[in-house]
Amino acid sequence: MTVYLVGAGPGDPGLLTVRGAGLLGSADVVVHDRLIGRELLDLAPASASVIDVGKVPGRSIRQDDINRLLVEQGRTGRLVVRLKGGDPFVFGRGGEEAEALAAAGVRFEVVPGVTSAFAAPAAAGIPVTHRGVSASVTVVTGHAGTPLEPGGVPEAADWAALAVTGGTLVVLMGMAHRGAIAEALLAAGRSAATPVAVVHWGTTDRQRVVRTSLAGLAAVDLPAPATIVIGPVAALDIHVKRTAPSCAP
Amino acid sequence: MTVYLVGAGPGDPGLLTVRGAGLLGSADVVVHDRLIGRELLDLAPASASVIDVGKVPGRSIRQDDINRLLVEQGRTGRLVVRLKGGDPFVFGRGGEEAEALAAAGVRFEVVPGVTSAFAAPAAAGIPVTHRGVSASVTVVTGHAGTPLEPGGVPEAADWAALAVTGGTLVVLMGMAHRGAIAEALLAAGRSAATPVAVVHWGTTDRQRVVRTSLAGLAAVDLPAPATIVIGPVAALDIHVKRTAPSCAP
Repeated sequence: MTVYLVGAGPGDPGLLTVRGAGLLGSADVVVHDRLIGRELLDLAPASASVIDVGKVPGRSIRQDDINRLLVEQGRTGRLVVRLKGGDPFVFGRGGEEAEALAAAGVRFEVVPGVTSAFAAPAAAGIPVTHRGVSASVTVVTGHAGTPLEPGGVPEAADWAALAVTGGTLVVLMGMAHRGAIAEALLAAGRSAATPVAVVHWGTTDRQRVVRTSLAGLAAVDLPAPATIVIGPVAALDIHVKRTAPSCAP
Repeated sequence: MTVYLVGAGPGDPGLLTVRGAGLLGSADVVVHDRLIGRELLDLAPASASVIDVGKVPGRSIRQDDINRLLVEQGRTGRLVVRLKGGDPFVFGRGGEEAEALAAAGVRFEVVPGVTSAFAAPAAAGIPVTHRGVSASVTVVTGHAGTPLEPGGVPEAADWAALAVTGGTLVVLMGMAHRGAIAEALLAAGRSAATPVAVVHWGTTDRQRVVRTSLAGLAAVDLPAPATIVIGPVAALDIHVKRTAPSCAP
């Protein structure tokens, strides 16, 4: 059998892929992260083993342990779905899990998902690229480790380079270090007036959006999980201003 | 009714979202791009009107005309699905279509899709970010216009900045200008030995992958559509090297 590294998408269960839904529906084992919606887990058969390896601050399971668990489960011959938020290969550490499975000779398949880096902004009316406004988009993690160093201090070189691409910057898992990230970008010459949008639980019923500027990012009071959008597109809010007469019931 | 701007995903019909599939299944009108798989169009009811607005080089429909068509169709009160390759808000010009609908007071909704910028590399065994290898990923279009100028000459500033982020660079629609893109990145100091992978028709049965370096990109002989991955992750090819005994039938 095979271990399927499945992207769960950004939160809205409708944004799971057709293939991901099919695999979940026939899973013997589901190994999932902390922020996976309950609705998705309900797609698995009642007989499936559901294992939460979510890393909650304070009681984290090490990545090595997750890799070992996937290899073990893969060797049982059961259909294993490793359900990861967003896309497995975009800051999901899916590459490491795939490498561990490959090294152990356990067959696996990556099933990409809709990344919250693009879907959360979209749900707030923000296209990450837009003609005449932004011609590139960079996704980076603000989580301690990469590209922040273990202590949480941004590596100046990376952020300085990212500050001058002229494109949109999307920071995942960046709320804990939002002040340091803003400082690093300002120090590298990005304008304090650069529009910023913070999207909490994007695409879900719990979605909340705060609009500010780079100068105001440190003061944004929203808990994780949140997607931070930095750049001129963050000022966009494309939605219908009025209802056309022909649309009335 | 509503115009749904639906991301069709990267090519594999299984990578359409559950919500996208549901909307297609109840569509009265489908307005689609050129590179949409036939399998996806088959999801629409037989009674649906299917309109191809694909821009084939030489006989292109202008974006303004597409915007006008969507407004017109939206006003009829029928359920309109605007099916766009990848994600509508990532170089899909979906932002412009959404703006046109908003300005006309036609209700719309964006249904994000799996972007080929991340899924095509994944299908070739390449995670766009990877611990210790790449801590950011930038997506850019190589199509004339943005960020290339109409004549096809890259805007030096953008590419120079993108050359030094240290992260992965994914170029969509870049095959026509691959030589100029490589030159611009080399001129900005990116090493000629930087790994490059070109993924043609990623995630589909027609997928082909060419591995090279920045020095070799100009000589890659693959037709569009292709996704170009530039950076150390492009040397990765994570797959199972042997089959574990317990996986044997």
